[in-house]
Amino acid sequence: MRITLIGSGNVATHLGAALKNAGHQIVQVYSRNAHHAALLAYHIKTEAISDLANINPNTDLFIISVKDDVIEEIASLLSIHQKPVVHTSGATPLAALQKHIGKSGVFYPLQTFSKTREVDFKTVPMCIEATDQDLLDTLKQLASTISNGVYAVDSEQRRILHLAAVFACNFPNYLYHASQQLLAQHQLDFNLLRPLISETANKVQEHLPAAVQTGPAIRNDEKSMVAHVALLNGNDELTAIYELLSQAIIKMGKGQPTVE
Amino acid sequence: MRITLIGSGNVATHLGAALKNAGHQIVQVYSRNAHHAALLAYHIKTEAISDLANINPNTDLFIISVKDDVIEEIASLLSIHQKPVVHTSGATPLAALQKHIGKSGVFYPLQTFSKTREVDFKTVPMCIEATDQDLLDTLKQLASTISNGVYAVDSEQRRILHLAAVFACNFPNYLYHASQQLLAQHQLDFNLLRPLISETANKVQEHLPAAVQTGPAIRNDEKSMVAHVALLNGNDELTAIYELLSQAIIKMGKGQPTVE
Repeated sequence: MRITLIGSGNVATHLGAALKNAGHQIVQVYSRNAHHAALLAYHIKTEAISDLANINPNTDLFIISVKDDVIEEIASLLSIHQKPVVHTSGATPLAALQKHIGKSGVFYPLQTFSKTREVDFKTVPMCIEATDQDLLDTLKQLASTISNGVYAVDSEQRRILHLAAVFACNFPNYLYHASQQLLAQHQLDFNLLRPLISETANKVQEHLPAAVQTGPAIRNDEKSMVAHVALLNGNDELTAIYELLSQAIIKMGKGQPTVE
Repeated sequence: MRITLIGSGNVATHLGAALKNAGHQIVQVYSRNAHHAALLAYHIKTEAISDLANINPNTDLFIISVKDDVIEEIASLLSIHQKPVVHTSGATPLAALQKHIGKSGVFYPLQTFSKTREVDFKTVPMCIEATDQDLLDTLKQLASTISNGVYAVDSEQRRILHLAAVFACNFPNYLYHASQQLLAQHQLDFNLLRPLISETANKVQEHLPAAVQTGPAIRNDEKSMVAHVALLNGNDELTAIYELLSQAIIKMGKGQPTVE
């Protein structure tokens, strides 16, 4: 396909590289910031533009990968080209593209992207949605050229995914940070915990988390929990987190539902 | 070395197999439960006993891998053999072995073990401690035959490690569960989040967690956080967790210390 990338952040960069590698033609890369546009365009061997007036209309699809609050405006500005547009945002409904004259859709890669890390796009779940079946089929086909996991997900479901990703990614990363800080305070190397963090994530690749829960709370081991809180030594924040999550795990251990 | 295993749980099983594979001789496996002893003994091709009276004294080391609250009693009962004993518990001080007449130590593998999963022991950090330098040297040597990571860790540090492991393993696993429950409630497949969970754990293998924190809270993105809490739809437990962890991440983003 002939694809135009609007945006040059982490998602645009990783997605652009994956599409290029899959044999698609990236027609242009647009970014307000000419330097950012040039960097990504160089990386994926295409033309950089920093003015929407210079858009080449000879494209099959605009992929809008910009900050959530400017998606709507950009989609609207692209209407004159009468080509399909998709956005890549987990938190933005399809309806945000309704001012765009023409087909619109969503092309959301559910992964955490960093500038400094390569991602194997084949493993990244692609969540797609579209205003009509033709575009949905096109997006399904396109997604399957870069990923082994393609899912039709509507806007309501995608909101839930975006929320669930906070629980599955952002909050665990904060807890890794808390553990690293506890270690540092006692001159202990974070390498001591890295294999445990890996194995904990690996376990749930095959099992449901509830089936592999370990630790004092799931055993209702009061003695260990009291000792741990004492060891937190008046750190109010970590004590509150310890108690709240331990109570939740105890409740889970009793078979009480987490979500009803 | 000639090694006698006291216990037949997850740690004894994985440790026994690793020691056997590294060329050590497992003299006997003891468990109160004759069936459990027989299973593990069969697995690592040694003799099973379920009565401490049948201990073969011709061994170099007793590894006590039993529930924390019976370690002390068993160590004391092994005194008559006048051989070194070590326990494998993260939560138990070296001093729990003081009734043992002879050298004593700790041989703690910092990992989460499951019956159903193989673990590459080379990656498991081995935390060792001993009452005297000779035994410490022996344990260092023994640990290095099964693991690439051997650390001298005293009882106070090991208590911290055990606490930090709750933050790095048990709590993230609960949060994976919460995310899975949110998905299930909306007919979404947990496979959508599994790659994200993997990548989140992979990122901190090279970076410190604070350097790779993502999500609405670190951006102080109030709009997304308010939308997420609304989406939790009165689920008090998940709302409390969302708010507490988001506040902690916001504080981290301002550079305020998590642990002082």
